[in-house]
Amino acid sequence: MKNIKLTIEYDGTNYSGWQRQPNANTIQEEIEKAIANAIGEKITIIGAGRTDSGVHGKGQVANFITDSSIPGTKFKYAINRYLPEDIAIIESKEVEKSFHSRYDALGKKYKYLIYNAPIKSPLLRNYTYYVPYKLDFEKMNEAKDYFIGKHDFAAFMASGSNIEDTVRSIYYASLNTYNNIIVFEIYGDGFLYNMVRIIVGTLVDIGIGKISPHDIINILKSRDRKSAGHTAPPEGLYLEKVCY
Amino acid sequence: MKNIKLTIEYDGTNYSGWQRQPNANTIQEEIEKAIANAIGEKITIIGAGRTDSGVHGKGQVANFITDSSIPGTKFKYAINRYLPEDIAIIESKEVEKSFHSRYDALGKKYKYLIYNAPIKSPLLRNYTYYVPYKLDFEKMNEAKDYFIGKHDFAAFMASGSNIEDTVRSIYYASLNTYNNIIVFEIYGDGFLYNMVRIIVGTLVDIGIGKISPHDIINILKSRDRKSAGHTAPPEGLYLEKVCY
Repeated sequence: MKNIKLTIEYDGTNYSGWQRQPNANTIQEEIEKAIANAIGEKITIIGAGRTDSGVHGKGQVANFITDSSIPGTKFKYAINRYLPEDIAIIESKEVEKSFHSRYDALGKKYKYLIYNAPIKSPLLRNYTYYVPYKLDFEKMNEAKDYFIGKHDFAAFMASGSNIEDTVRSIYYASLNTYNNIIVFEIYGDGFLYNMVRIIVGTLVDIGIGKISPHDIINILKSRDRKSAGHTAPPEGLYLEKVCY
Repeated sequence: MKNIKLTIEYDGTNYSGWQRQPNANTIQEEIEKAIANAIGEKITIIGAGRTDSGVHGKGQVANFITDSSIPGTKFKYAINRYLPEDIAIIESKEVEKSFHSRYDALGKKYKYLIYNAPIKSPLLRNYTYYVPYKLDFEKMNEAKDYFIGKHDFAAFMASGSNIEDTVRSIYYASLNTYNNIIVFEIYGDGFLYNMVRIIVGTLVDIGIGKISPHDIINILKSRDRKSAGHTAPPEGLYLEKVCY
């Protein structure tokens, strides 16, 4: 019996997200089907975190227990053979029996791409959030620093979520521009449901001038979803890395 | 009567190339249909050059003559309303009556992206040429300089092409790496059918070690398609800019 850790890249465009659910095309299900085809075992994989419909994975992590004799590093080839071309195992290895991809995660890094230009880009349409309005980058850059540290992020959680402890620590956040693309990166110990997308939507509202950077302090204090900005769409979001 | 110049971006993945043809989904046809819907005129647009199935456009150019009263710069909005999301007019303006997007082109710039890693990228699958082999970047970089200047490129033209004058001038070529991506850029007065893709395929064959950089001299001299390398696939190619 061994425990296999997978690192997974996927284009989330054509999926109803990570988590298996009836009557929907999901990334988890595709990987479980591919594993069944590759090793003849019907197993359930444990993902480090769910991603929503349209969200992409660059370094999603999952693990599963198997009796297969395939060496850990070879699983990626065996499974990739049966995966559609918008999902790939980019790394596989055997880990300790006790390893659990969700409980053992110490942190996650997300990336979010905004495309800011007068006309929407056909090439980037599924891979960026298209914002046509002029954005004040300096204000957005100032605002992002207010998220760093340990805060109660209740105002940045989708309403209706059933989480009691809404305190999270953000270790790092950066904002950079490359021509018409704004790249936001954020690294923290954990994220509430839709948290990155609400943070980005709020940054965009700051860039447009609807909210001022200093308002973030009061939004955090309010613990009220309605005081934060809009939820940015899924297509700009990438789960970059899960740290253990 | 006015002459309108369009600059066009498109994701070529789901099209049978630029040029209108029976029973095929083409970019030219989509734009002509959108113009018909936007201004109620059935017109034919003149493209600066064809792109093959799967090849992308970042700065394709086309022009057309119209009686419409819409100001030149507003055409982009009127046409984009009727285009699918993988094609967009990013610029439109009125130009001199004599302007012809193909005959007046002084040069074209292409970009080609190679993804070089152990596993194919799901996110970049339609936007890069996936090469799993270890590539000698220094040799590829040395080789690219042999293409610069005025040469007979007959060896770098798809066999079966019916072009008599196969002499072209390459003004500029560059090769850069960003993590696992190799970016090749080439600018010249004109390109033969499949010329960029055969140049890139030859550079990859040099990177693998099948051909040496200095061989380019003899391949050019041979005027024989069989002496050059393979034809790189369309998905890595972008028509970046047409210069007038």
